[in-house]
Amino acid sequence: MKIESVDFFYLAMPEVTTAADGSQDALIVRVTAGGHVGWGECEASPLPSIAAFVTPMSHGACRPVSDSVLGQSLDDAEDIKRIADLLAYNSMDLLQAAHTWSGIEMALWDLLGRARSQPAWQLLGYSENHPKTPYASVLFGATAQETLETAVAMRGRGFKAAKFGWAPFGDSLEGDVAHLDAAREGLGTDGILLVDAGQIFGEDVDAAALRLDAMERNRVTFFEEPFGGSALRAYAGLVAKAQTVKIAGGEAAHNRHMAEHLIDFGKVGYIQIDCGRIGGLWPAKLVADYADQRGVTYINHTFTSNLALSASLQPFAGLENHKICEYPTTLQQLAADLTVNHIEPDENGEIRAPDAPGLGMEINTATLKQYAVDVEIRVGGKTLFSSPTK
Amino acid sequence: MKIESVDFFYLAMPEVTTAADGSQDALIVRVTAGGHVGWGECEASPLPSIAAFVTPMSHGACRPVSDSVLGQSLDDAEDIKRIADLLAYNSMDLLQAAHTWSGIEMALWDLLGRARSQPAWQLLGYSENHPKTPYASVLFGATAQETLETAVAMRGRGFKAAKFGWAPFGDSLEGDVAHLDAAREGLGTDGILLVDAGQIFGEDVDAAALRLDAMERNRVTFFEEPFGGSALRAYAGLVAKAQTVKIAGGEAAHNRHMAEHLIDFGKVGYIQIDCGRIGGLWPAKLVADYADQRGVTYINHTFTSNLALSASLQPFAGLENHKICEYPTTLQQLAADLTVNHIEPDENGEIRAPDAPGLGMEINTATLKQYAVDVEIRVGGKTLFSSPTK
Repeated sequence: MKIESVDFFYLAMPEVTTAADGSQDALIVRVTAGGHVGWGECEASPLPSIAAFVTPMSHGACRPVSDSVLGQSLDDAEDIKRIADLLAYNSMDLLQAAHTWSGIEMALWDLLGRARSQPAWQLLGYSENHPKTPYASVLFGATAQETLETAVAMRGRGFKAAKFGWAPFGDSLEGDVAHLDAAREGLGTDGILLVDAGQIFGEDVDAAALRLDAMERNRVTFFEEPFGGSALRAYAGLVAKAQTVKIAGGEAAHNRHMAEHLIDFGKVGYIQIDCGRIGGLWPAKLVADYADQRGVTYINHTFTSNLALSASLQPFAGLENHKICEYPTTLQQLAADLTVNHIEPDENGEIRAPDAPGLGMEINTATLKQYAVDVEIRVGGKTLFSSPTK
Repeated sequence: MKIESVDFFYLAMPEVTTAADGSQDALIVRVTAGGHVGWGECEASPLPSIAAFVTPMSHGACRPVSDSVLGQSLDDAEDIKRIADLLAYNSMDLLQAAHTWSGIEMALWDLLGRARSQPAWQLLGYSENHPKTPYASVLFGATAQETLETAVAMRGRGFKAAKFGWAPFGDSLEGDVAHLDAAREGLGTDGILLVDAGQIFGEDVDAAALRLDAMERNRVTFFEEPFGGSALRAYAGLVAKAQTVKIAGGEAAHNRHMAEHLIDFGKVGYIQIDCGRIGGLWPAKLVADYADQRGVTYINHTFTSNLALSASLQPFAGLENHKICEYPTTLQQLAADLTVNHIEPDENGEIRAPDAPGLGMEINTATLKQYAVDVEIRVGGKTLFSSPTK
């Protein structure tokens, strides 16, 4: 097969707010090759990601993503890895390229899996698809009482684990302690409690460390992204101060190396990978193997659609001991509507990557029109991109 | 002052080739505040960088660059650092943001320096502006004979140092040895010889190490970017195998941390920073200080206009012992034409950052029209960007 077309669909809710909710818009990718279709999703700002695909070349090491993708052979998994290497070289100076490529790479596994009637996790080399324990991924409430109510609600929905994140966490130590106590109270003594600080402490290890006592008293399993994604020394500094709580991070990694450095030099206990940013499924799989060999737990980072959720489960589907997974529970309507089928907890409260060809998700094509944001990019008098009409 | 406007000028040569020559196009930034104007240059793919400035918000941590810049106060150096921190947080999920911001940040130092009649290097905290020894930055020839001729030509132009880079280096061991011998022969026994592999070895330490003998025999001072910019373990692996040649890298760093990690974990001997990618002058200055404290030599990475060259000299202008600097010598016409004045070697063959307000470069505004590439970006029926007409 040859890669014939790559289309981008920019979708958004009618109103997009400053909430830390990544499901308010989406960049969906459709790839065709040999009469087959595959779908992927970039966890990325849509407009710059589209621009990275169509932009004119700046020089030999700053080429558009399209240069390394369109017309390429796609017959097996090795082709996807080969295209990834080609792109990394040809677009080494185009920073956004990794985010654009991530959605395309996902779509290539989906397409290849459909063409071969194999799930993506099999193509990645796994023979088994182990169940995962989903944690409800929610935002802290505006008040501790709201956080408590959210925790109670998630427990009521059957979740054994919940992660609370972002503002107002970090505003004050007193407030943070109240939110942590409320989350534990609402979740019950046996619930798995996780916390996401959303990089609020920059690289201030001491400020983050002030929260450790309340976290350990409330038996928080991991403390996610206390710092900027690249602040490796700060991560290692906090790890040295923690007793029982593990430090987590990795969602900002836009290549395999960055995630591995967070393990080697940041000393995290949990490595969280977003397939929509790191370059898709294959680099995520390599990070999962790397983590497994070093006693670090791999987790997906997913805050968008079930298409992205399926993609994010594939790279560690075969790793039985990497058990918990992020499960977005308060998706905006566009993200919920995007797929006809959904990944739901079974009677044991567990989820799995679909046992179906490719990523196993059926796209609800009506949403591609319903939530469409029209884009037109003209450069030097030529239209380089206009939103697909079908 | 308040930041009133940020304009982007996308310039390109009539023909852009796959040569590793970053001066074939340019993204020039003009900022106005309080009746003053400042200029900067992104070392970046122009279209995605413009898109990152104007794109609609995706969520609170994926906002357009414009959100953190327009309307901000700009009265002293602390304001520039404050805006940088704000941007890093507000746009943490917008990968291209760092490249867009780099040109804006440069322009802010230029503007502030002009408003205060102070050179940027003074605003950065230096009291002295030490001369640097420029190395001619050129590409390897297609044949060893061409490389020899280039070396002779650079020597003839008075350069004491020259760096040869990119293809065909890496094609074959035999060929690489011939090019290294030719470069040394052409440069003469006392010339400073530098080599840039342009990431050709990916992360293959053994392949890169095969070139060490010929490098050390030819007294190569540093071996630049043998590997991908994030392959820290590969860098450290090669350092362990080298005897006299130092390993260099850093141009891909899009934040201060990445450069510091290359020092701490990649063990490089030379750290090379492009102000047009790392986020401008201030993070570059912090990396220069960091390197100085650790016995690592700081060098600019510059392959575009003299505006970018001036910006790249500022962060280490006051560091007397960091002596050599990259000096692009085969610029495309648009990069040569962009500035009215140029930074030229003095009678000692040395260059300095301008002793003039801001970056000290006068923009030749005719080039902004002559080489203009028209861009229009429409999203949701609204024009978010069209190239400035004046």
